[in-house]
Amino acid sequence: MRHLLDTRTLDRETALRILDVAEDMSDTQSREVKKLPTLRGKTVVNLFFEDSTRTRISFEAAAKRLSADVINFAAKGSSVSKGESLKDTAQTLQAMGADAVVIRHHASGAPQTLATSGWISAGVVNAGDGTHEHPTQALLDAFTIRKRFFGADSRGRDLSGLRVVVVGDVLHSRVARSNVWLLTTLGAEVTLVAPPTLVPQNISLWPVRIVYDLDEALAEGPDAVMMLRIQLERMSAAYFPTEREYSRRWGLDARRVAGLPDGSIVMHPGPMNRGLEISSEAADSPRSTVLEQVTNGVSIRMAVLYLLLAGERDDERGGDQ
Amino acid sequence: MRHLLDTRTLDRETALRILDVAEDMSDTQSREVKKLPTLRGKTVVNLFFEDSTRTRISFEAAAKRLSADVINFAAKGSSVSKGESLKDTAQTLQAMGADAVVIRHHASGAPQTLATSGWISAGVVNAGDGTHEHPTQALLDAFTIRKRFFGADSRGRDLSGLRVVVVGDVLHSRVARSNVWLLTTLGAEVTLVAPPTLVPQNISLWPVRIVYDLDEALAEGPDAVMMLRIQLERMSAAYFPTEREYSRRWGLDARRVAGLPDGSIVMHPGPMNRGLEISSEAADSPRSTVLEQVTNGVSIRMAVLYLLLAGERDDERGGDQ
Amino acid sequence: MRHLLDTRTLDRETALRILDVAEDMSDTQSREVKKLPTLRGKTVVNLFFEDSTRTRISFEAAAKRLSADVINFAAKGSSVSKGESLKDTAQTLQAMGADAVVIRHHASGAPQTLATSGWISAGVVNAGDGTHEHPTQALLDAFTIRKRFFGADSRGRDLSGLRVVVVGDVLHSRVARSNVWLLTTLGAEVTLVAPPTLVPQNISLWPVRIVYDLDEALAEGPDAVMMLRIQLERMSAAYFPTEREYSRRWGLDARRVAGLPDGSIVMHPGPMNRGLEISSEAADSPRSTVLEQVTNGVSIRMAVLYLLLAGERDDERGGDQ
Repeated sequence: MRHLLDTRTLDRETALRILDVAEDMSDTQSREVKKLPTLRGKTVVNLFFEDSTRTRISFEAAAKRLSADVINFAAKGSSVSKGESLKDTAQTLQAMGADAVVIRHHASGAPQTLATSGWISAGVVNAGDGTHEHPTQALLDAFTIRKRFFGADSRGRDLSGLRVVVVGDVLHSRVARSNVWLLTTLGAEVTLVAPPTLVPQNISLWPVRIVYDLDEALAEGPDAVMMLRIQLERMSAAYFPTEREYSRRWGLDARRVAGLPDGSIVMHPGPMNRGLEISSEAADSPRSTVLEQVTNGVSIRMAVLYLLLAGERDDERGGDQ
Repeated sequence: MRHLLDTRTLDRETALRILDVAEDMSDTQSREVKKLPTLRGKTVVNLFFEDSTRTRISFEAAAKRLSADVINFAAKGSSVSKGESLKDTAQTLQAMGADAVVIRHHASGAPQTLATSGWISAGVVNAGDGTHEHPTQALLDAFTIRKRFFGADSRGRDLSGLRVVVVGDVLHSRVARSNVWLLTTLGAEVTLVAPPTLVPQNISLWPVRIVYDLDEALAEGPDAVMMLRIQLERMSAAYFPTEREYSRRWGLDARRVAGLPDGSIVMHPGPMNRGLEISSEAADSPRSTVLEQVTNGVSIRMAVLYLLLAGERDDERGGDQ
Repeated sequence: MRHLLDTRTLDRETALRILDVAEDMSDTQSREVKKLPTLRGKTVVNLFFEDSTRTRISFEAAAKRLSADVINFAAKGSSVSKGESLKDTAQTLQAMGADAVVIRHHASGAPQTLATSGWISAGVVNAGDGTHEHPTQALLDAFTIRKRFFGADSRGRDLSGLRVVVVGDVLHSRVARSNVWLLTTLGAEVTLVAPPTLVPQNISLWPVRIVYDLDEALAEGPDAVMMLRIQLERMSAAYFPTEREYSRRWGLDARRVAGLPDGSIVMHPGPMNRGLEISSEAADSPRSTVLEQVTNGVSIRMAVLYLLLAGERDDERGGDQ
């Protein structure tokens, strides 16, 4: 694997390989062998143009457990704020020895540009770009689903036969997009639930079903219900009248959780707005995988960094992506 | 030891054990064996809701010398500023693999809540909470006093027979509180000196004597004089008329230092307001232990992290705190 | 070597020694032996009173490749912003175990004060002070020139016979100053090109020629053309009429690059203002050493930290500087 830019172009085989390596990583972590020497001497740069302590720390923990050196580069206060271009910043980081660049950027497509422009040869990992994609989030979600439904010994297995409902602000959500592509590639059936004002215009091109009524979607007894974070700063009266109204119609509360079939799970990428898109009862119920998702996030990011930096690199065999 | 939350409930035996382990740590540091492999594979998170570069760096240096991985989490700009609760933040950090959480918080009691709510199983170290406690500061102060008066080979020894005067804004000082509990537990006699407006209302419940006149307290020939930092942002005309007036009445200057008995020491937790609570002559005099306190701070924090993460944990034997 | 404070007082022998050790460091890096155990157990503190992500990261990468522990101390939000003096900050850092302090400061002379005041015994590296000096930048520039003109196997060789043109805001540039002293010490001939308003008043005391017309200087066929960054925040109508006018008269564009002799190189310390002091064609031309300078910067900083912390220290033999 050369880069990880999106899940839309990630094929089933590569996706399963990431999940399987993450399973290996997860094994070592649970056996208290937390530190592996695998990436000793490699340098991972976290290049963050948007604040995201949570995602940055997850990548940092993953890299350090593989014994890589980590350098955090927050755009704020740096030469970026003095007008330096993405190209110059990236080339500078590589010239300093960066083997992989983990990038979060407000502009959709920035990681793609970085990886395919020929500016740098370092591996690029998309840690969230605009409203486009957040592929490691989707991978950790898929990993969490597989582990819950098929156990740890499910290497090689995809998500065929499972039905996932994704609820919330699909319009602005890179998490929703990455999950739609990955989950369907892995054989799951995906249903989106959103207020009509928060559905992308081109939704008919997505391999999903769209439903506007949450209770209708839940009545079908899905295996997993994935709640999206409402980013209040993006919301306005144009999208929905009030928080209370949103919560009543599209929030997951104790009543709705109670109606779910046995064994089904409740997911959220965090951080949660408790009381808005998810109630505390739902967030803390035994069905909730919120903390497993965080733990699995480190395993997935270890796997991705491993495959980029220690694995066979496709480019050395003439491949792409 | 499971957590370090305060010195008020710290028993004499545990306190001495921390001081003795710190003595061992200090030994290795002075022999230039700065890096110990003890906590390799462990992750320490510095969770700071208030800026404190000095304390954060001291914990960071301590953790790194024990070969732990350190992740710094400043609340500013993180999901905390997006409204995430302390519970969700802490559980997220633990899910990422945090073995210990070093927390500084503006709210008194936050570390206690974190440790006793059942939210997380990681060890919790209070690095300063509101006006409540700052236990590692008191431990390093006690360690400094013991070392100065009884030498490095004073393992097992407490502070019986020593008299300590603590001077300044006792009302708002977590350093004063932690020192009062610890020093008296260790057998020292503590006298507080403060302007009447900066004395807590419940002072009669504290195991100390209160004196309002600094020269009166110093005339008794104390072994150690500990000056508290004046936090100017908290001061107002309600507390004292002017900085100059404060300095004249409650500041430690060359004249007052000259009157101290041979062998007595001058302490300050730093950062100092030179010319306000302490003059430069006092701060830089041979009696001053200001820099020893900083060095000892790293040893104490190494000891605390060691006892939390590598030592026998009381909870595994059914004990508490 | 005890400290690295400037290039003005750096003798030829010491300068060449730094370049030669940097050559060794560069060798190990290109052989993918990125991590050396040399400074294991040593602590390097980056004490930055001005933002400079680029320089800070370069020192951080250098220190980590030598297995040192790195602690970043940004003055903002620290006790420095609470009024703590440079002396107290530095002594505190040393008391925590800092073996070397890399300091960037807005005041010219601050590193010198730190190193010579007797406040601390740690090695001090000037990472840029006011408009005074930025010695590691000049060293990496000299290293880059030597490598381009004489190859990797040029240990012991100085820059005799080479002609370097430095162009831009000489008045405010610490990079220009450090390069003037170092390049001339190493035997190069230096010509400065600047608008008359951006030339220091005491320029007649510098061992250089000053020319006001860029094309005149380039017509002489220099070996290296070093463009200085224009710091727009410092510019005003008093210095030059417009950015466009500056660019036309003192900027390096494709036409001017085309007129350079074969083998000559184009340098810039970064970050670049593309379109102002340097055009994209010039910055990205094969003559450009911009990225080599960044890579070489890590080697130079490894060499400096190595000589300060692992090499024979002159003070142990009674020497100075």
